[in-house]
Amino acid sequence: MTGVIDFRLRPPLGGFLSTIMFREKERTMARTRQLSLEPPPSLLDLSVDTLLAEMDAAGVKTGVITGRNTGTGFGTIGNEEVAAIAARYPGRFVACGAVNPVDPAVLDELDRIIGEWRMPAVAMEPAFAPQPMRANDRRLYPIYAHCAVRALPVILTLSAFTGPDVGYCFPVDVDQVAHDFPALTLVIAHACWPWVQPMLGVAFRRTNVYLSPDIYAINLPGRDDFALAARTYLQDRFLFASGYPFAPVGGALEAYRAMGFTDRVAEKIFWRNAAALLRLGVA
Amino acid sequence: MTGVIDFRLRPPLGGFLSTIMFREKERTMARTRQLSLEPPPSLLDLSVDTLLAEMDAAGVKTGVITGRNTGTGFGTIGNEEVAAIAARYPGRFVACGAVNPVDPAVLDELDRIIGEWRMPAVAMEPAFAPQPMRANDRRLYPIYAHCAVRALPVILTLSAFTGPDVGYCFPVDVDQVAHDFPALTLVIAHACWPWVQPMLGVAFRRTNVYLSPDIYAINLPGRDDFALAARTYLQDRFLFASGYPFAPVGGALEAYRAMGFTDRVAEKIFWRNAAALLRLGVA
Amino acid sequence: MTGVIDFRLRPPLGGFLSTIMFREKERTMARTRQLSLEPPPSLLDLSVDTLLAEMDAAGVKTGVITGRNTGTGFGTIGNEEVAAIAARYPGRFVACGAVNPVDPAVLDELDRIIGEWRMPAVAMEPAFAPQPMRANDRRLYPIYAHCAVRALPVILTLSAFTGPDVGYCFPVDVDQVAHDFPALTLVIAHACWPWVQPMLGVAFRRTNVYLSPDIYAINLPGRDDFALAARTYLQDRFLFASGYPFAPVGGALEAYRAMGFTDRVAEKIFWRNAAALLRLGVA
Repeated sequence: MTGVIDFRLRPPLGGFLSTIMFREKERTMARTRQLSLEPPPSLLDLSVDTLLAEMDAAGVKTGVITGRNTGTGFGTIGNEEVAAIAARYPGRFVACGAVNPVDPAVLDELDRIIGEWRMPAVAMEPAFAPQPMRANDRRLYPIYAHCAVRALPVILTLSAFTGPDVGYCFPVDVDQVAHDFPALTLVIAHACWPWVQPMLGVAFRRTNVYLSPDIYAINLPGRDDFALAARTYLQDRFLFASGYPFAPVGGALEAYRAMGFTDRVAEKIFWRNAAALLRLGVA
Repeated sequence: MTGVIDFRLRPPLGGFLSTIMFREKERTMARTRQLSLEPPPSLLDLSVDTLLAEMDAAGVKTGVITGRNTGTGFGTIGNEEVAAIAARYPGRFVACGAVNPVDPAVLDELDRIIGEWRMPAVAMEPAFAPQPMRANDRRLYPIYAHCAVRALPVILTLSAFTGPDVGYCFPVDVDQVAHDFPALTLVIAHACWPWVQPMLGVAFRRTNVYLSPDIYAINLPGRDDFALAARTYLQDRFLFASGYPFAPVGGALEAYRAMGFTDRVAEKIFWRNAAALLRLGVA
Repeated sequence: MTGVIDFRLRPPLGGFLSTIMFREKERTMARTRQLSLEPPPSLLDLSVDTLLAEMDAAGVKTGVITGRNTGTGFGTIGNEEVAAIAARYPGRFVACGAVNPVDPAVLDELDRIIGEWRMPAVAMEPAFAPQPMRANDRRLYPIYAHCAVRALPVILTLSAFTGPDVGYCFPVDVDQVAHDFPALTLVIAHACWPWVQPMLGVAFRRTNVYLSPDIYAINLPGRDDFALAARTYLQDRFLFASGYPFAPVGGALEAYRAMGFTDRVAEKIFWRNAAALLRLGVA
């Protein structure tokens, strides 16, 4: 296996260092250990060179990085900065945009993400908004419509930890959005964990939904359900991601490999699906 | 094992040929392959004789066939026709009725199902109605009441694919109906997949609820939860079904057998439960 | 392993004998057999001495007993009586209080539980109230507030069998309470079964939530999800309980041991977690 794409990774650089995951390293490392993994050296020394060496050692060529713009206190990383980071490390990071869904200028920002930075996807975390929103909140519909028309995939972060309570990552909401915008490609980061079985059902029906469960498919309840779907009907829409720094890149990759993919399916999950989704040139 | 009853099967005959599953064979075969099964020859040649030979080869004696009457574009198979098909192949098919729940004459049709065609159960697909309904929709209550008094089991089709979104197969709705009509026997075709764990909980409490997951217990998430329940507390109310043509009769049977039943439990699941429910004479 | 604490057990004594589980022994034994366990002799002869011998044989030192006060027909065991039972068998039973949440004098009763009987926790079954309540019912908030300030853990019984339907044990409700009262310790008896995956997600996030699934982690769907969480991130907040008389103490212990704990984790789950939670002196 060469050329793995890690669909969710935050390098210890610039604005990323202001996010809680790097500011509170002990908290992050405790989470890693709950997954039965060891925290990576690059988290201890906060060195991007160490991270790149860890990626090399694991065979991970590229990490997908997105900005963060929630309008609340989770730290902010602007699209400009994410683009600059990717430019500084050619071939190692793919920059995706992020928008604050309640920013009055959000549609203009989407146009810049597409036209100016030429980013292949945009991330939103509506449950982190000052007024937390569920995925089917009607205030998000102009954004979904804008992205559907422009073929810009939307990455939504949805899990037990996003939003005031676990009702904010309810898969029914995703189902409705996927239905209402059949031309929109949705990537569900964290895969609505812990609603594992219902989310896998939604993804069976809605072929415009991709799942990128990152750490939530590693040694957590529902792991075997994820693995079964990824081996079979979801093999074209399941994406490997480490969620670094919450998991080490290499340890996460080992955990995903343990899902028992055939070589052909492994190729899809470890790089082909992501490459096609993000329209990366494939070697 | 002899005399298996397949609780959900659609022969390639008459009105069944007008349904999407036979009209769009490629779509149906794609679904079969997602279950890691091979499409049956009888789907390729649309021959009932081939199907009967496949049933014979697998040891499946009888298939339960129901009409379809949703008032929308899924194809229609009337009760008259289903009864005629069963009559044409004595002992091979058991005909159950179907009603359109919003038909003003629905209670009269139920009386004909009981009195004229002497059918042992009736099927409804309220989520496919022009105004989709959940299982606990109050418009269905007169029908449930009518069937409860007349001891006519009601087969409800509920899964991620029935209705506008996965909220339409929410097991809480089934729980309420089973509570409100303790004398009513409910068979949940598709078993409210993907709400596997909650549905199995409802079926633990409500002893008037039977599950017939058909393809949704075959190589899909929740499979092991279904199997554990079927081996133990649900052994008297779990029904084998292939969902043919979505799965081949023989391949479905193999998948169910792999659930690890004892001989005594296998007898129940592969024919005794269905025979008792449908009041078929048991050899 | 010595000194096991069984977090949910009802001895065949006094008011407990008036509850349905002892009054309808055949019903209780049927449930036990559904778990693939054999009913204990002590249920047959309704002898507390037999029960104590069964506890000794299994290595279970102490059983946590709570009153029951639902205001409905489930039988009543007052706090006074529960305290007396524990006093009569020193070291074998730990008495926890119970309150009827709609009793106008409920806050006074809580003060007696703390000050007069010096009980380490209080149990509520709001779904059994004359007007059944969900865990996040605002009528419960004064009680939660009172207990949070006084550091009195609250034991809520939540499962498919508590309340009118399976919506009454929805984990989202628990999530909201745990969020709204971060200083309150919640123990969820029955662990909101069958909402296993979502409840395990809530317990991952809310570190003031303990799970005591009792029989619902024994040979029922979700068992493997419970076991994975208990081995890893939930090891400090997972409690062994038999739910006796629904399961024999020894049989339940064997089923929990089969979850594959390391010695260090087993110590936590079989006694350390309960001892710390209930502030019992640890040998």
